[in-house]
Amino acid sequence: MALSTPRAAGALAIIRVSGHDALGVVARRWQGADIDGMASHTAHLGRLLDSDGHLLDEVVLTVFRAPHSFTGEDVVEISCHGSTWIAQQAVLSLIDAGCRQALPGEFTRRAFANGRLDLSQAEAVADVIASHSRASHRVAMNQMRGAFARRLATLRARLLEFVSLLELELDFSEEDVTFADRSQLLALARKIHAEVDTLARSYHDGNAIKNGVPVAIVGHTNAGKSTLLNALIGDDRAIVSDVHGTTRDVIEDTVELGGTLFRFCDTAGLRDTTDTVERMGIERTLRALDEARIIIWMVDATAPRADVDSQSALLSDHTEGKKLIAVVNKNDIADSHDIEAAKQAVTAIATPDAIIETAVAAPNGVAPVVEAITTAAAWASVDDEALVVTNVRHYEALTAASDALLRVIDGLEQGLSGDLVGQDLREVMHHLGTITGEITTHEMLGSIFSRFCVGK
Amino acid sequence: MALSTPRAAGALAIIRVSGHDALGVVARRWQGADIDGMASHTAHLGRLLDSDGHLLDEVVLTVFRAPHSFTGEDVVEISCHGSTWIAQQAVLSLIDAGCRQALPGEFTRRAFANGRLDLSQAEAVADVIASHSRASHRVAMNQMRGAFARRLATLRARLLEFVSLLELELDFSEEDVTFADRSQLLALARKIHAEVDTLARSYHDGNAIKNGVPVAIVGHTNAGKSTLLNALIGDDRAIVSDVHGTTRDVIEDTVELGGTLFRFCDTAGLRDTTDTVERMGIERTLRALDEARIIIWMVDATAPRADVDSQSALLSDHTEGKKLIAVVNKNDIADSHDIEAAKQAVTAIATPDAIIETAVAAPNGVAPVVEAITTAAAWASVDDEALVVTNVRHYEALTAASDALLRVIDGLEQGLSGDLVGQDLREVMHHLGTITGEITTHEMLGSIFSRFCVGK
Repeated sequence: MALSTPRAAGALAIIRVSGHDALGVVARRWQGADIDGMASHTAHLGRLLDSDGHLLDEVVLTVFRAPHSFTGEDVVEISCHGSTWIAQQAVLSLIDAGCRQALPGEFTRRAFANGRLDLSQAEAVADVIASHSRASHRVAMNQMRGAFARRLATLRARLLEFVSLLELELDFSEEDVTFADRSQLLALARKIHAEVDTLARSYHDGNAIKNGVPVAIVGHTNAGKSTLLNALIGDDRAIVSDVHGTTRDVIEDTVELGGTLFRFCDTAGLRDTTDTVERMGIERTLRALDEARIIIWMVDATAPRADVDSQSALLSDHTEGKKLIAVVNKNDIADSHDIEAAKQAVTAIATPDAIIETAVAAPNGVAPVVEAITTAAAWASVDDEALVVTNVRHYEALTAASDALLRVIDGLEQGLSGDLVGQDLREVMHHLGTITGEITTHEMLGSIFSRFCVGK
Repeated sequence: MALSTPRAAGALAIIRVSGHDALGVVARRWQGADIDGMASHTAHLGRLLDSDGHLLDEVVLTVFRAPHSFTGEDVVEISCHGSTWIAQQAVLSLIDAGCRQALPGEFTRRAFANGRLDLSQAEAVADVIASHSRASHRVAMNQMRGAFARRLATLRARLLEFVSLLELELDFSEEDVTFADRSQLLALARKIHAEVDTLARSYHDGNAIKNGVPVAIVGHTNAGKSTLLNALIGDDRAIVSDVHGTTRDVIEDTVELGGTLFRFCDTAGLRDTTDTVERMGIERTLRALDEARIIIWMVDATAPRADVDSQSALLSDHTEGKKLIAVVNKNDIADSHDIEAAKQAVTAIATPDAIIETAVAAPNGVAPVVEAITTAAAWASVDDEALVVTNVRHYEALTAASDALLRVIDGLEQGLSGDLVGQDLREVMHHLGTITGEITTHEMLGSIFSRFCVGK
């Protein structure tokens, strides 16, 4: 039993009771229609009593009978008035009637134990609740609906095919039919490895989708980096001033643009300095650059071009494999000659994916930048069928499975016996089994579900 | 349509849709069983879609058909995963499908408009949600269940009886039967007035029950007032030190003891002082004394008795009609002679309802004080049937009705004509009608329901 709505005043609070005696326990605190006679999936108005038999609240009770409930057990949901006091008293009254306070994630854990969800689906429940953007929500929802579990089932089927081929080889090993089967085995192992590897590598994207695609905003001091960040995040978190070198710390903020979550880093300006504090800021800038998937390079169209040159020299070491968006800023006050010169200076030493000419401080000046960012992160706008790994536990299991598969391939290539190859193969099966929960340990389940909130 | 659970992450979030087209609008965003075919009070697992037709969440939808719902209209409750993002998207999707965001208290207002609740019951819904103690919860719950409305209905019946007697008098006025009827009328008017007056006067208690029974803790500096308060409220809000005159401001805190909410005021010590700031503190102490229903007078058993005398001289002006609890403190370090002397000094100049000898800083030293406080506030521990006015609007209406009734009585006594008495009588009916909502204005309803939360 647990309060399943947030512990705050609202119109409604829901208390969920699950277990083989859920109906019996609630009946002890209920005044209304006979609970035993209630059909599954029906709602009933009545009274919830406190331990002394006094009226606690008028409530609506909804009954879900096993196995047709979230947990697969008998479930009663009690919808009471959203007073924290009433919710607390209701919980106490039910504990007194024989309930136990649920552990974090216990309902989902029971759903898993009762075969209602596999482990990857159960974990996705927490991700669904924690999702903050359309993209991360879709990834979690796809996983909760079992897309990941189905892909793993396909892999498992392929692995079983592989095992039966391996056994065939063992059966016929004395008859020297080994070589023909080996090439078939090898092809299948490579195919499975490629699939596992694709899934494992999707974690790089998945993590960015879940926690925000990292974007570094860099450029010379006073080029308008903080102004851009403020326009993007919509508040005044970064201090904007006309003094060079104002932003010494890396400021991070997340914002959803076009359905994707971005994690923006405003950085200290890149310029040579002897100021120790500012120097540390520049080091942090370089680290932010290395972590970024997208770099926005702010160029002040009114500033001397020598500056642009020094920036790009620093930038060139850190842009490989990243999307680079050059923003030639302040085009409202710079003359056209300077703007053109700035653009030429940029393209002379870098190959940006986009060059934008705008004034981010002007109304709508930020719009072309937003467009360039969402274009640069098109890979992150997942559709309803997208399958991306976002869970570090899954990533580690997939990586371990991938490594074991490489050993299988290696063994096959080196002509190792089927027995030895079989050992690595069992390891692959093991790692994939931990994802869906076919193989679990008490510690693993404890660690997974302890991160859930109480009431889920 | 509104989110009816708190706007925070939890396991579940409930969105409530009410209106004649509630089912039709939700159907536009629903993938699952046919909504039109759903019986009232049934729950259904299915999918909620966003405006683009993408899967937003797997939800449980519960249908309540008019008039068997909270509002009296068709109601659909959508139980989705408790992510703030999902809840927000679901709200947007439903708005896009034709819903309107509900105003604060709109569901309750509709319940009133559809005759499901009278106005006093509707107002009690907000009080139930806001209740923080057993006593305030019972008062609100009794009111919500209609105890107040029924009492008013009884009053109304008596008033109608009165009106018919008055009409009888008018009919027979030419036949000179006036006097006999007048005494009957007068007796009835006095009876009604007594009932209205009792209800109006219950507001004094009701307000204390709802907002906490005011208790002033007074006494000489360093007598242990702050220590007592801290022991009562269970944290270190008041600064306790051994320097005299530490607590210069009136500190207020509420705590539930034995089911009743108390509002404790720790006050500046009562002593003659020339310090302006401390002088202001003492003035606040006197004000707190005047407002209190219970006064706890802390006496330091180790301090000179001259001090006790000066305290009681100040106290004597402010204890009338209040419960006085004298606490002879520090009995663990004072000798028995001093303790006895302190008690004698107290009783020599005041008649406390209880004298307690304890050391509030010692373990369980506060227990006898708690017992004395709850005993002194026995009137505040309401039972399931108790009827207490807690709403200032009701209080004002009852007071106005009581005043008009006094004029009716006065008129009858002075032999005014039935027509003139009838005018005051209509005023009585009017004021009582505003409580139950038989008489309302748009402004009045707006002001009542704007204090509700959205989603109720």
